[in-house]
This record gives sequence, C-alpha cells and structure tokens, in this order.
Amino acid sequence: MRIAIDAMGGDNAPQEIVAGSLDAARAYPDVTLILVGDEGQIKQCAGANLPTNIEIVHTTEKIEAEDEPVKAVRRKKDSSMVVAARMVKDGLADGMVSAGNTGALMTAGLLIVGRVKGIERPALASIWPTMGGNSMLTLDVGANMDAEANHLYQYALMANAYAQIVLEQEKPRIGLLNIGAEPGKGDKLRKEAYPLLEAGPFHFVGNIEAREAMNDKCDVLVADGFTGNNMLKLIEGFGLGIFGELKKIFYKSALTKLAALALKSGLSAFKKKFDYAEYGGAPLLGIDGAVIKAHGSSNARAFRMAIHQARAFLKGDVLGKIRTDLSAGGEEKA
Amino acid sequence: MRIAIDAMGGDNAPQEIVAGSLDAARAYPDVTLILVGDEGQIKQCAGANLPTNIEIVHTTEKIEAEDEPVKAVRRKKDSSMVVAARMVKDGLADGMVSAGNTGALMTAGLLIVGRVKGIERPALASIWPTMGGNSMLTLDVGANMDAEANHLYQYALMANAYAQIVLEQEKPRIGLLNIGAEPGKGDKLRKEAYPLLEAGPFHFVGNIEAREAMNDKCDVLVADGFTGNNMLKLIEGFGLGIFGELKKIFYKSALTKLAALALKSGLSAFKKKFDYAEYGGAPLLGIDGAVIKAHGSSNARAFRMAIHQARAFLKGDVLGKIRTDLSAGGEEKA
Repeated sequence: MRIAIDAMGGDNAPQEIVAGSLDAARAYPDVTLILVGDEGQIKQCAGANLPTNIEIVHTTEKIEAEDEPVKAVRRKKDSSMVVAARMVKDGLADGMVSAGNTGALMTAGLLIVGRVKGIERPALASIWPTMGGNSMLTLDVGANMDAEANHLYQYALMANAYAQIVLEQEKPRIGLLNIGAEPGKGDKLRKEAYPLLEAGPFHFVGNIEAREAMNDKCDVLVADGFTGNNMLKLIEGFGLGIFGELKKIFYKSALTKLAALALKSGLSAFKKKFDYAEYGGAPLLGIDGAVIKAHGSSNARAFRMAIHQARAFLKGDVLGKIRTDLSAGGEEKA
Repeated sequence: MRIAIDAMGGDNAPQEIVAGSLDAARAYPDVTLILVGDEGQIKQCAGANLPTNIEIVHTTEKIEAEDEPVKAVRRKKDSSMVVAARMVKDGLADGMVSAGNTGALMTAGLLIVGRVKGIERPALASIWPTMGGNSMLTLDVGANMDAEANHLYQYALMANAYAQIVLEQEKPRIGLLNIGAEPGKGDKLRKEAYPLLEAGPFHFVGNIEAREAMNDKCDVLVADGFTGNNMLKLIEGFGLGIFGELKKIFYKSALTKLAALALKSGLSAFKKKFDYAEYGGAPLLGIDGAVIKAHGSSNARAFRMAIHQARAFLKGDVLGKIRTDLSAGGEEKA
C-alpha cells in the first residue's frame, strides 16, 4: 500500500509532516510513504537512516495557504500537492495525505485524481467532538456549494462506508441536519432528500436538529456544504472564544490562578475533547483514491493520525464498499 | 401606543408574563398594555390595583409549545396568541409580544397580521452575544426556509432599520454570512445576493465567515432561514453543553468546589453574556406591526425587556423607515 505525503503543506511543514510520517512508517511496515516535496529540506528534517518504507520525490513548488485554489492547482504543476495527486491518478500511489490549502486539495482531488464512477459530487467529511465524549462525522463541510437531494443521499452512503470501515462503527446512525425532528420539516432540499435517505442501504435515523447533534444523537450528520462549512467555522470560533474568555477569568488575580490550578486536570481533559489532533484528518469522500486532509496546524501526532486513517481507508477498501452500495441503491448515475 | 400581550404563551405563563407586563406598564406610562388570556388567571397573578394603562381581554384557548403551528393558528381562534394578532390586524393594537410557540407566532404574524407592502418574506431576527461583549442581530433564523437573493436584501434593509432605531446603532455594519471573505465566494444564493447588498441603502461590509462573526465583525448578520436556524440551535447546544461540562469539572471534589468559588464572579459575568434575558426578544421583521417573540423560558425581566423593544420599535417608527428605504432601494415588488 503506497501513500503519497504532501510534505510541504501545512503550518508546520515540512518538520512536523516529516516527523509524523517517520513515526507512521515505523508503526506500519505494510505501508510505503512517498514524501513529496523539497528533497533537501525533507532530508534535513528526517536525518540519516530513513526507514526502508520511506521514499522521497523531489518537487520545486509549494501551494501556499493564501493561494487561490483553482489557479494554484492549474499553475503550480510541480508543487508537492499537485505531484502527489498526480501520483494517485497514475496509480503510483493509492492515496494521499495533505495538511495544505483545503480548497486546493479539493480542487486537486476533483480535477487531477477524479471522482469515483457514479458519484456526482465529492464531499469533505470532518469529525466533530460531541458532548458525551464521542464524535460525529459531518459532511459536506464545504467541497460542494450547491447541493441537490441526490448529493445528500450519496454523502450518507459514502460516510456510512467510511464510518464502518475507518471508524469501526458497526451500524452508524445517519442523521439529516434539519430545523426540526419530524419528517416533512425543512427547506425544499431537505424535503426531497428525506425519502431518498429513508430508502438508502444504511441506518437512517431521520432529521437531527443542531442542538441535538451535539448530544450524540447520530454518528454521521448529513448537511449541504454551505451549511456544514458555516457550522464548522462557528464551532471553531465559539470554541476558541470560550477558551479565550475562560483564560481571562483564570488569569485575573493570584487567587484565580491558584483556583485554576486546582481545576487544571479537569479542564485539560475537557479541552482535549476539542483537540483536532485526537480526531485526525478529514476524508475527501467520492474521490477515486484515499485522500485525507490533515488539519492545517497539524503537529507530528495529528499528521500520523491522518496517515493512520488513509491506511485504514485502503486496508478496508472504503471505495469498494461505496461502489457496491451505489449499485445496490440503484443510484448509479453518470 | 397600544401593545397586545400574549399572557398565556411561554414556559412561565401567565405568572412571569403578567409580572413583566406590570413592571413595564409602571415604567412606561405612554404605553397601554392589553393582556390577552384567561381573565381569572391574569387577575390572580396581577393582584389588586392594576395600573390604569393595563387592560385585559379574556380568551379561552391557548396554543401549546407542542402544537403544530399552522393547524393551531387556524383552529384555536380564541387562543390568546391569535386574538392578540387579530387586534394588531384590526388596529386595536400597534404591536404584540409573545413568549409562546415560535412557529405559531410566525404563522399568526404572516396569516393574520400580514406583511408590510413590498416585503416578500418576513424574517425572524435574533440577537447573539459575541465574544467582545457586544451583540449581533442575526436574521433570518427560521421564518422562511427557501430564501432567494432579494429576500436576503430585504432582510438586510429591515435589520438595518431595527438596529438603528431599537438598538441605537448609528451605522450598523451589515455582513453576509458566507464561507469565505472575498466577494464571489459561496453558493448561488450568496453570489446573487452580494451585488444587491452592495447597492443597498445601508452600510454593507461584505462577506463574513461564521468564525469571524463571533468576533464583532458586524452588527447585523444576514443568513437564509435554514442556515440561520441551524446556527442558532448549534450555539444553544454548544453553550449548554459547555456550561454543563464546566459544572461537572467544578463539582468534582471539595477542592474544585472551593476553586470554583474563587472564580465565581468572573464565571457568572461570562455566563451572563449568554443570558437571553439580557438581550430580550426576537423581532419578526416585515410584519405590519411590532411583533416581538420573547424567549420561551422568559422570566419577568426578560419579558419586560421584550416589551421595551416593542415600544422602541413603535416610538422610532421602524416600519416607516423600512417603507422609506424600500422605495429608496427601488426594490418594491408586489
């Protein structure tokens, strides 16, 4: 199993990307990792004695976080991300992991690697912590802006395969994000999607309100990309804001600092729940390869977790299950 | 100025509703409040010596929180909410305040009171706390499920009038909730709405991402009702969840309880920020009257605040400004 690594993508590239890859290479001898990026820099980070299941492919360009995605993918043909994507397309790798520009990765996935036959729109799926200490796979969080009912159906089908195989959930509860719990609620899109989801080859548990979604009411939450992206950013903003406010309260005086010390273990366990590194990367589902987006600020541990996900994706043949379920659902459209 | 009060609506009705109304009647001698509901119960809550600017209109029915909105408004013709709405329609009151079933109030507003001429869809606007200690008026949070670009434009126009007059903001910054800050971002709806908003008679500050919205980047956030409703419920769920988790951490041991005590004043100031009672009710904008939805669990103080908003709405002639701006914007469609 061969996984291409975008060694230059992410806030902490290449150091943390290379470090996480080395850890993963040592932990998974059945995987070959191809580090794509500036060879000199990679070698400097990796040191001597590379594991035998690490290869390096030299590239000269890098897609920056601020780059306009479509332009960057089209123009920076020798960038680490584009070269990694082309390796997947050409069968030189089975999947890729990148902590780089999310929009560019979605573009590279769509334009270079290409879609699974029968999938109309790929979706980015992100794992959200829920209050009970579990997590929930939410998609689409922004790959596709103008979703139609059949797209939502296919999101559910793909996430079901991913949750079963990679997250090892036997029978993931699939919920439709909606403004009310009763069938028939919502806008035109949700009303059209509901009966399709009901008839799908997975465990559909109906409409789920956002308030309830945070309370472990489903394992997969299906949303259109516009709503999903806004919700993801709201959680990030709200989470950061709240921890920022708490910090201010704790650092107010010597007394509050002392008090905060007594609460430290509880608070850090709580904060850990919202730590992306615990949850790993976001799969780009519907692309014809295992494409995992690691968090932009990934450290070595988070990046290694994302590689672990790509490996589980390939070992368990998520794409095979998606193809089978697509045919079973009779939804195979060109 | 006459304001009809749905005395039977809300979790704490009629006690807290009547108490809040009495406080408001004493504070605002220029307002006459018409308490609509069960006369016996209202009198029992109000005691003797009613202020002279309180009237009672007896009704026999009540719309429950669980009632299906459209059915309830159509069938319960002698419910406190429906009778209050009819008083507004008939010119016997200039506005109404209700803490009852939100869906039913939106239905009663639309079907009984009716729209402002030229407004295509009314919108429910809710005030969200932001991290800097300010607040932000967000609409639509669920009155209209399938929004079009011109609806978003009219939401902005109405919220601008409300923010200027009721929230006393001189030049409210109007933002469009979107998945990226640059113009041209988003789905079809946002792309169509952007140029309309840019040309509107208000201070449009462009696209605002949800993460930024929590950081005081705008005073009015324009969203479609589906997204707005989901975001509102996510904030509620997330807020409740976080305070629940903190409580667990604080109550873990004698030591943590002591520590929490030292942090008490800071934490309660923080929690107050998320206290709906501080922010009052949600105006239903675009209805031909001042219709304010108070929070379902309103206590007397929150309900009095909602009456205060209805009074400011009427005193400042929000509807007059909306009509003027509609003509100025040249967007008056039937």
